[in-house]
Amino acid sequence: MAVDPRFFPAGVPLTLGEAAALAGGTLQGGDAALRITGVGPLGEAGPSDISFLHNRKALPLLAETRAAAVVLPPELLPRLPEGRVAIVTKDAYLGFGRIARALYPVPPVRPGVHATAHVDPAASLGAGVEVGPFAVIESGAEVGAGCIIGPHAVIGAGVVLGEGCRIGAHASISHCIAGRGVVLHPGARVGQEGFGFAVTPEGRFETMPQLGRVLLEDAVEIGANACVDRGSQSDTVLGAGTRLDNLVQIGHNVRTGKACVLVAHVGIAGSTRLGNGVQMGGQSGVAGHVEIGDRVQVAAQSGILSDVAAGEVVGGSPAWPMRETLRAFAALRRLAKPAAKPG
Amino acid sequence: MAVDPRFFPAGVPLTLGEAAALAGGTLQGGDAALRITGVGPLGEAGPSDISFLHNRKALPLLAETRAAAVVLPPELLPRLPEGRVAIVTKDAYLGFGRIARALYPVPPVRPGVHATAHVDPAASLGAGVEVGPFAVIESGAEVGAGCIIGPHAVIGAGVVLGEGCRIGAHASISHCIAGRGVVLHPGARVGQEGFGFAVTPEGRFETMPQLGRVLLEDAVEIGANACVDRGSQSDTVLGAGTRLDNLVQIGHNVRTGKACVLVAHVGIAGSTRLGNGVQMGGQSGVAGHVEIGDRVQVAAQSGILSDVAAGEVVGGSPAWPMRETLRAFAALRRLAKPAAKPG
Amino acid sequence: MAVDPRFFPAGVPLTLGEAAALAGGTLQGGDAALRITGVGPLGEAGPSDISFLHNRKALPLLAETRAAAVVLPPELLPRLPEGRVAIVTKDAYLGFGRIARALYPVPPVRPGVHATAHVDPAASLGAGVEVGPFAVIESGAEVGAGCIIGPHAVIGAGVVLGEGCRIGAHASISHCIAGRGVVLHPGARVGQEGFGFAVTPEGRFETMPQLGRVLLEDAVEIGANACVDRGSQSDTVLGAGTRLDNLVQIGHNVRTGKACVLVAHVGIAGSTRLGNGVQMGGQSGVAGHVEIGDRVQVAAQSGILSDVAAGEVVGGSPAWPMRETLRAFAALRRLAKPAAKPG
Repeated sequence: MAVDPRFFPAGVPLTLGEAAALAGGTLQGGDAALRITGVGPLGEAGPSDISFLHNRKALPLLAETRAAAVVLPPELLPRLPEGRVAIVTKDAYLGFGRIARALYPVPPVRPGVHATAHVDPAASLGAGVEVGPFAVIESGAEVGAGCIIGPHAVIGAGVVLGEGCRIGAHASISHCIAGRGVVLHPGARVGQEGFGFAVTPEGRFETMPQLGRVLLEDAVEIGANACVDRGSQSDTVLGAGTRLDNLVQIGHNVRTGKACVLVAHVGIAGSTRLGNGVQMGGQSGVAGHVEIGDRVQVAAQSGILSDVAAGEVVGGSPAWPMRETLRAFAALRRLAKPAAKPG
Repeated sequence: MAVDPRFFPAGVPLTLGEAAALAGGTLQGGDAALRITGVGPLGEAGPSDISFLHNRKALPLLAETRAAAVVLPPELLPRLPEGRVAIVTKDAYLGFGRIARALYPVPPVRPGVHATAHVDPAASLGAGVEVGPFAVIESGAEVGAGCIIGPHAVIGAGVVLGEGCRIGAHASISHCIAGRGVVLHPGARVGQEGFGFAVTPEGRFETMPQLGRVLLEDAVEIGANACVDRGSQSDTVLGAGTRLDNLVQIGHNVRTGKACVLVAHVGIAGSTRLGNGVQMGGQSGVAGHVEIGDRVQVAAQSGILSDVAAGEVVGGSPAWPMRETLRAFAALRRLAKPAAKPG
Repeated sequence: MAVDPRFFPAGVPLTLGEAAALAGGTLQGGDAALRITGVGPLGEAGPSDISFLHNRKALPLLAETRAAAVVLPPELLPRLPEGRVAIVTKDAYLGFGRIARALYPVPPVRPGVHATAHVDPAASLGAGVEVGPFAVIESGAEVGAGCIIGPHAVIGAGVVLGEGCRIGAHASISHCIAGRGVVLHPGARVGQEGFGFAVTPEGRFETMPQLGRVLLEDAVEIGANACVDRGSQSDTVLGAGTRLDNLVQIGHNVRTGKACVLVAHVGIAGSTRLGNGVQMGGQSGVAGHVEIGDRVQVAAQSGILSDVAAGEVVGGSPAWPMRETLRAFAALRRLAKPAAKPG
């Protein structure tokens, strides 16, 4: 079985030729008129499914697959067994994704406000907005055309959502201006008070008023149960296209550039700035008030304590240049070898 | 005070003899007819409570406890002070748990759909289901007999829940087939889109359609605010009895065997597989596309980057065999000693 | 722009003299009668805003700021450029916070139960309580005067909230007795079952009844999507004033002293105790059944496996005294240097 029709209605059929065109690739063997109805991994795909191969580990499955065709990059074409059909394209993963999207389009917006939702009379909804059961849209909020507000989502007072945003079930969003096509997955928390307080002479904590906002640029995506605190005075900003995985934490006043990728459980402390295209592995973290340059790559579980120049690859806790960290691990491992028994 | 009746109604009384039988143990001293009404830790239990002892650290409390009897393993019986009463059983913790459960049974299901809940006419509810305030059950969902759907929980379109599942407050579940007795604690997120996207030649991210499901086998438990993403093409699978603690992250296409235990903040990246009985300590993580064998034990905060054979015990970040990691820490600590002052 | 009026209504104006008094400071230069209407960071504040400076990094901005006055500590006063106005006070951060709070008071409680909320007839609400849309207050719960219960929050059966608590959107709280002024941020989970189970001889997991409570002392704050499990037999306790950042995990039976600070993604395993004033950096963790003394400081990403004496500063995973850990890192870094080429 490939795709379960209980969750994804039967795909929009394509011909093999159309699929190749969508993938920006060329068909090697096969009948361009063959009807394709689904997708599946190499080991599970059926004779009217398309599959893909983009790493060598899966090569052994090429001989066995029953898929109608396999999307693969030119360098793997020589490994295609006799009689198999391929769609050859430079970026097999992207190409395959476009075929899959054509077969299984994003479900259309179902415009309308569910009878159980609570929309404040002083909120404004654009054309064709879908509002789910028990959603709350507070006073002064502006929801752009074509947005989907999921069940139980709460859109706080004054929040602005651009066109085509998707807010998942149980997400909450306050003190936020969001661009177009922003996605919040279920349970995401955006705009709550940051973790800021002063200590009184008597040793009590006194909350610092958190008077900033969250700015989410176009196409930002925020994972399930991830948290983005609003700024304390200036704003917390996520640059266009930036994607946070589940359970990520973004402190107040953090700013990221465009197209950053933060994997699950990443934590960024307050006022830190990330350049464009920064990638952080799972469970890594950055201290507060640090500058991370463009395109920096951070290994999983690393801990960054000070500025990192553009283009660097860092790892370890504390994080050092990756090459140095790898040498340190190697040296440590040598030290850990049991001493040779005297002969 | 032992157990607060505001939250746990007065226990179902037992005799001491019945308690010993439930624990699979034998009574040492004491009156088998004595009436037991509660449980409590050694230092807090009263004269009609049962307590337990399963590690040596708590031995000093044995002399002081006012408990009617103490459940303990045979090897600790010689330490029982004169005149104290014990229930002796090989697994004191399990035995004590069974006594506690008999005294304080799981609250019964209260069948019925709360007036404020929203159940789609095309959803089906089994016999004796309890649906809480503001819960949402979408079209095509099938809820098995005796399930409890907590307040604000959202059961997505087409989801199947076996008999006797308990879905906590604010949990959301979509694209999922669950077996019997599955438990989601409050705020758990199951079935949302995984973190998968391709990069276009222009540098934009394009979401890969996430067309798989989540399969939760019987008796799986998922902690508060934990996240389990659905598969991208194949399924994300948690094997029977597997338990996730709070705030755990499971990426798309991950598969675990039976009876795995993942402590809080664990993260498993996409397409990784765990065998049966794998145990992972808090804040540990595994990279994507890795195979972890049966019964592997992973120390807290470890980071696994490559396959681990069945039965291994690993630790550290990056994770090595535990013995080697401990030697590395010891060597490092020696290096860290201040150099001896020249004499 | 300083503060966005869409989210924070125009401030309550102050004179500069009043502001200095609120900060417990003295005005250096400037007109005590000048009208102040807002706050802002040095680089963004306008001529009727107050700003502040409490670290040397921001000194270059002092010359450029357009702020009406800058709150700063006496040791930075000599750096104030000619003609600039300062409010000089020992703790600039606290002083500035008090000015900001006076300008932007916490929004007042709007007493009343929203028409869509579900309050059980056997729950009791104190005077002036605000209950938001779709909130649920279960049987026997007691909500103190002046509490704010946010949209979709669930207050479980028998829960007691002291006066002036603020429960955020989508938070859930059960089996809990909370003091005055307790704050739960959106999606916080308090009182759910802890992660406790015994293994049967057949290898199945059997849940240990979790019969304790959560006690939250006055002014405890719990971050967005953070989790606090209830005790198994005794209680889980957070001491007065303790603050948890987002996504923190507190296991069953944990007890903290007063005024502890736990940064995002911290995890504390079951039955561990923290003294007063313990501070733990982001992504750090403590094993179960450990004692951490008063005022211990724990570096980010550290892992504590055994008891730590009062006043210690520890770091690393496993955590050692910080000085030792820093020496170990330095030694490791030397080892990682490429061997000098013979020459």
